Amino acid sequence: MKAKTLETLFHETLKDIYYAERKVLRALPKMARGAQSAELKSAFEQHKDETQGHVERLQQVFDLIGKPARGKTCPAIDGILEEGEEALEDFADSPALDASLVAAAQAVEHYEIARYGTLCRWAKTLGLTEAAKLLDATLQEEGATDKALTKIAEGSVNKAALMAA
Amino acid sequence: MKAKTLETLFHETLKDIYYAERKVLRALPKMARGAQSAELKSAFEQHKDETQGHVERLQQVFDLIGKPARGKTCPAIDGILEEGEEALEDFADSPALDASLVAAAQAVEHYEIARYGTLCRWAKTLGLTEAAKLLDATLQEEGATDKALTKIAEGSVNKAALMAA
Repeated sequence: MKAKTLETLFHETLKDIYYAERKVLRALPKMARGAQSAELKSAFEQHKDETQGHVERLQQVFDLIGKPARGKTCPAIDGILEEGEEALEDFADSPALDASLVAAAQAVEHYEIARYGTLCRWAKTLGLTEAAKLLDATLQEEGATDKALTKIAEGSVNKAALMAA
Repeated sequence: MKAKTLETLFHETLKDIYYAERKVLRALPKMARGAQSAELKSAFEQHKDETQGHVERLQQVFDLIGKPARGKTCPAIDGILEEGEEALEDFADSPALDASLVAAAQAVEHYEIARYGTLCRWAKTLGLTEAAKLLDATLQEEGATDKALTKIAEGSVNKAALMAA
């Protein structure tokens, strides 16, 4: 039996985040529809377009390692998105709905930041320079999205959530 | 029916991270036992002690809002830890085991960073100054742990994972 090395781990984790990104892509329109404030709605819509770009970058990375672009079930993102769905249901028509959506989205961003950070370092160790660049480009965008969400939360969303309904 | 506000959301999310921290507390000894390098083993052991402190800080926050310290199932951390367990099994005796353990631990850290960042901002909005301080103290420690894990990965673990078994 061939021992599992960093190459295998890189490929397995690539499949994990590929599944995750495509699942997030399907969740974002629902989050955008649910959001109360125009600002948050538009942030989710913009991030959907970006996420489409992340999926395409991952397909390029699969290409670079000569593997088909295929996902594998990622229980982590399933759990994170399940909490987002719960928030949408539990806080529907509540002044705290947007605050709960931002929290759910930031949990997603941080999962992606963890995975892309790891993948980017592994790509460098494996000498996959081009793949590392693609992964780092997405990592930077996920970080920027996380910061933008914090700004939205601090700017209006959290204060709105304080209002009595 | 009483509308759900930021106060409810804060309390619900506190229960979520309380469950998560206690589950992480139980997972860390297993990760420490599994780790191949002494450096990673000791990092997990040290983080276990810190995590015990995080649980106690959360109990103080529950106290501050006059609620019993109680968790509620958090599918996100369940999924994240499930992936960690898979890594332990799939990469047992592989040179990439430690690399996969670091990746799993950083996914945990980032979930906690997302949740504590959110809770800390909500505590400030709610005027819970003392709670915000406690949550921020843990947030800083989770961030430091994440950075320490990156350093371990870049220092030795990822290179070790390259070796053919």
